[in-house]
Amino acid sequence: MRVPLDRQRTTPLYRQIEAHLRRTIASGALPAGSRLPASRALARDLGVSRLTVETAWAELVAAGLVAGRPGSGTYVLAPPRPSARTPDERWPAWQEDLAARREVGPDEPPPGRGCISLASGQGDPALYPLDGLRKVIRAVFGRDGSSALEYGPAAGDPALRRTIAEVLSSQGLPARAEDVLVTSGAQQALALASSLLARPGDPVLVESPTYSGALELFRALGLQVVGVPTDELGMRTDLLEPLLLRHHPRLIYSVPTFQNPTGACLPALRRRELLSLAERHNVPLLEDDYVGDLRYEGRAQAPLKAYDRGGRVLYAGTFSKMLAPGLRLGFLLADGPVHAALVEAKRLHDMATSNLIQRAVKAYVTIGRYEAHLRRTVRLYRRRRDALVAALRRQLPELRVESPHGGLFVWVRLPDGLSARRLLPLARAVGVDFAPGPRFFPEPREGDPYLRLCFAAHEPEVLIEAVRRLARGVRRAAGG
Amino acid sequence: MRVPLDRQRTTPLYRQIEAHLRRTIASGALPAGSRLPASRALARDLGVSRLTVETAWAELVAAGLVAGRPGSGTYVLAPPRPSARTPDERWPAWQEDLAARREVGPDEPPPGRGCISLASGQGDPALYPLDGLRKVIRAVFGRDGSSALEYGPAAGDPALRRTIAEVLSSQGLPARAEDVLVTSGAQQALALASSLLARPGDPVLVESPTYSGALELFRALGLQVVGVPTDELGMRTDLLEPLLLRHHPRLIYSVPTFQNPTGACLPALRRRELLSLAERHNVPLLEDDYVGDLRYEGRAQAPLKAYDRGGRVLYAGTFSKMLAPGLRLGFLLADGPVHAALVEAKRLHDMATSNLIQRAVKAYVTIGRYEAHLRRTVRLYRRRRDALVAALRRQLPELRVESPHGGLFVWVRLPDGLSARRLLPLARAVGVDFAPGPRFFPEPREGDPYLRLCFAAHEPEVLIEAVRRLARGVRRAAGG
Repeated sequence: MRVPLDRQRTTPLYRQIEAHLRRTIASGALPAGSRLPASRALARDLGVSRLTVETAWAELVAAGLVAGRPGSGTYVLAPPRPSARTPDERWPAWQEDLAARREVGPDEPPPGRGCISLASGQGDPALYPLDGLRKVIRAVFGRDGSSALEYGPAAGDPALRRTIAEVLSSQGLPARAEDVLVTSGAQQALALASSLLARPGDPVLVESPTYSGALELFRALGLQVVGVPTDELGMRTDLLEPLLLRHHPRLIYSVPTFQNPTGACLPALRRRELLSLAERHNVPLLEDDYVGDLRYEGRAQAPLKAYDRGGRVLYAGTFSKMLAPGLRLGFLLADGPVHAALVEAKRLHDMATSNLIQRAVKAYVTIGRYEAHLRRTVRLYRRRRDALVAALRRQLPELRVESPHGGLFVWVRLPDGLSARRLLPLARAVGVDFAPGPRFFPEPREGDPYLRLCFAAHEPEVLIEAVRRLARGVRRAAGG
Repeated sequence: MRVPLDRQRTTPLYRQIEAHLRRTIASGALPAGSRLPASRALARDLGVSRLTVETAWAELVAAGLVAGRPGSGTYVLAPPRPSARTPDERWPAWQEDLAARREVGPDEPPPGRGCISLASGQGDPALYPLDGLRKVIRAVFGRDGSSALEYGPAAGDPALRRTIAEVLSSQGLPARAEDVLVTSGAQQALALASSLLARPGDPVLVESPTYSGALELFRALGLQVVGVPTDELGMRTDLLEPLLLRHHPRLIYSVPTFQNPTGACLPALRRRELLSLAERHNVPLLEDDYVGDLRYEGRAQAPLKAYDRGGRVLYAGTFSKMLAPGLRLGFLLADGPVHAALVEAKRLHDMATSNLIQRAVKAYVTIGRYEAHLRRTVRLYRRRRDALVAALRRQLPELRVESPHGGLFVWVRLPDGLSARRLLPLARAVGVDFAPGPRFFPEPREGDPYLRLCFAAHEPEVLIEAVRRLARGVRRAAGG
C-alpha cells in the first residue's frame, strides 16, 4: 500500500495515514472485507515507527471503519447503512400519508433572468445599514467576548428589550421592557402566538385579504380560517359581530396599518370598535404592525395596542423592513399571564434568538438613529410609490389603483374578466413578476382579480419599465 | 414657552422644537387639551422663521400627539390608551383561563452568587472560537455585502447545507445536501419535526429519562408522552414492541449516543432493533445526536440514521456544543416527502435562520477545522469527566456513578431514602447547583433518586471543589 506522507506538515504522520485510509475506504478502493496491511510491514515500507501505524489503525477502529479480528489482522467494515434505497422503492407508509395530505399548489414556472420582480415583500437591500451593523458586531465581540456566543434568556437580551420599549414609546405606543419578547422575525411572533392560543380545528378571524404568510401558517396549524370582509379603509368592523357570534374564534389576526396586501390604514373609529368587540367577546387580538412607521402621508394612527386597557392585544413588530430581514429579528409585546406562556413557548421552540444578533441590533438602534433611518427610507419609498402609481395610471388606466399612504405595496384590481392567475405566466414571459391575489384570500378564488405590487425595492425608472412590461402582459391576457 | 435651541447642532431647528414638545407632552407638563402657542408668536420669541415652528407642529400632528382645530389653534391630544390598568383589575377572561391551565413548577430559590453550577447543558465558553468567528463575519460582510442581510432560502444557505452534508459524511453518516434543513439550533429541529408529525393528544415514545427540553416541548404541544424504560446501555428495546402495540405512537424520540441525561451509548444491536421495530410499526424515529462526536473512549457507534434504508429517521444535530450556542445553529437531516413539509414548516415558523450567521458558520467550518476543534475539546472534556468521576468516587462513595464514554454529563444515583428535590436547596445553600432527576422523567417522581452533573464547563479543580460542596449537602440531607 502506498501512503503519501508529507514530513514537512505539522499534521502528525499517524493522522496523515488515517486520513489517507479514510479517503481510500470512502472511495470504494478498499471495499468491505479488505484486509489492511500488517502494521509491522507497512511501518517498514513507509519508514515510520510501528506505533505510528498502530495509532492510525486504532483511530480507524474507533471511527467504526475497520475492526480487528484477533489473530487475523484488521478488516474494512461494511458501511452501517445496510443497502441503498432503489429509486422505485416506496417511502415508509407514514411518509406516503404525509405527502398525500399536503396540498400541492399550482406549479408555476419560476420567473426567468432579467425579470423585474414586484412580487416580494422586502425593502431595498441598498438601504440596509451594512457598515453600521458590521461595526457594531465588531464592537460586541470586543466588548462581550464569548458571552455574546452563549445562550441568552428566552425572552431576549434585557438591554434590547429596553431599547424596543423605548422606540415603541417614542412612537406613541407606551411599552414596558418586561412585556417585550424578542423573536426571530415577526413571522415567529405570529407562529408562537397563534400556536399558543389556538389548537387544530379552532376558528381564527382574519381580514380578507390578508398577509399570505399568516394565512399559510394558520392553515398549517390546522386552524379554521374565517375571513372578515374589507374595503379601502381596511376591516369592515361593522360586519365583525355576527362572525364573532357564529364562529367563536380563538383569535383575531389583524394588520391595521398599511395592510398587507391592500395598503389600507384602518381609521381610529374602526380601531376602537375592533378592540371593544374583541373585548366583549373575549377574543385575543393579534396585531401585526410590520411597517406601521413607513408612512408617506396622512396622520399617524395609533396601533390597536395603544387602545388596549391591558392584556387584550398581542402586538408583533419587526426590524426586518427597517434594518435588514436577514438578521431575523422581531418582537412581540404582550402583557398579562400570556407573556410568560409566550416566553416558555419561545424557549421550547428554539431556546432564544441568536445572542450575537440581538446585541448587535441593540448596539445599533437608538431612537435618533432609528428615526433618521426611517426618514431616509420614507423619502425614498414615497418617490417609488409615486412613480409606480403614476406609471400604472398612465399605462394601464383600465386597472383600479389606490395610492397607499404607507407600507410597501400597491394593490391593483384587474378589469372584469381578467384573472391574476392567467396573467402571471404572461407577465413573467415579458419580464415582470407580481404576487397574484389568490394567495392572500381565505377563499383563494376571490383573489383572482387582484395583484399585489411591491414598489420598495426598485428605482423609479425600473418601476416604470416594470409597468410597461405589465401593460404588455395585460394586453396579451385581454387579447388571448 | 421656552424651547432650548442649539444652533451649533446639525439637527434642524424644527426637529429640536418638535423633540422638546414631545418630551414636554410625554412628561405631562402639557396635558391633553393644552393649547400650543401660535406659530407666529413662538417664532418671534425663539428668533426662528414661522415656517420652522409650523413644520414642527406638522410633525407633531403627524405623530398623533396634537391636532389643529380650524380657527382655534393646535391642541394636545389625549393619549390613545383610554385609561391605565389598575393593579387589582382582572386580566381578560381568556388570559385568566390560560394562566389557570398552565402548570406552575415548584418555585426553588435561585442559586446565589459564587455557586458552582453543574446544572447547565453547555460546553465551556472558553472553547468558543471567538477570533475565528469574528474574522469570518467580517469576511462575509466584505464578500457578500447586503446580500448577507437578505432573507435566505427557508431550507438554509445552500453552501452551508453542503458543508453539513460533508461533515456528516466524513463522520460515517452519508448525507446529501438536499436532505439538510438548517434550523435555529437542534431545539428547533425537534420542535418542527414533532409539531409536524404529531397533533395534540397523539402519543409519542421517549426514553425514560430523556432530555428535558424535548419532554417539555412534547408536553407543551399537548402530546401524550410515554416513557420507554432504559438501563445503563440506553433504551430497553426488548420492551419496545408491547408499547408500540399498545399506544400506536406517532413518533419515537431517541438520544442514542451519550444520552441526555444518562450518558448511555446504545449498542449496535439495539440500534438495529429500534430501527426495525419503528419500520415494522410504521413510526417515524426522531434521532437527537446533540453530542455524538464528543467521544472520550470506546468505539464510535454509527447513528440510527446510518442504518436507515430511506426516510425512516429524522436526524437532528447542532453546532451549539461544538462552536457556540449563542449562534443558534442546528440542522435536521430528513429524506423523503417529509423534507419538503419540514422546509415549509420552517418557512412558516420564522422564514429562515439568520443568513449572516449561516454564512459565517459556513465560512468557519471545514472538515479539518471541525476535527481539530473536536480533538481539542475531547482532550479537555475527558480530563474534566475524569476529575469529576474520581472526586465523586472519593468523596461520595455511597452514590452510584457511571463514567460516561462521551458527552457532557455524569448521571448519579443517590443512596436509598435521599431525594434530589430535598437535596437541591441544601446543595445550593453550600454553593453547588445540579439538575435534579425529576425533570428528565415522563413520570417525574421516578427521577427523585437522580442528579445530572455537567462536567464540561469547569476546570478540574473547580469540579473537585463542587464535589466537596455536594458531599456537604448530601451529609446534611442524610442527617436532616
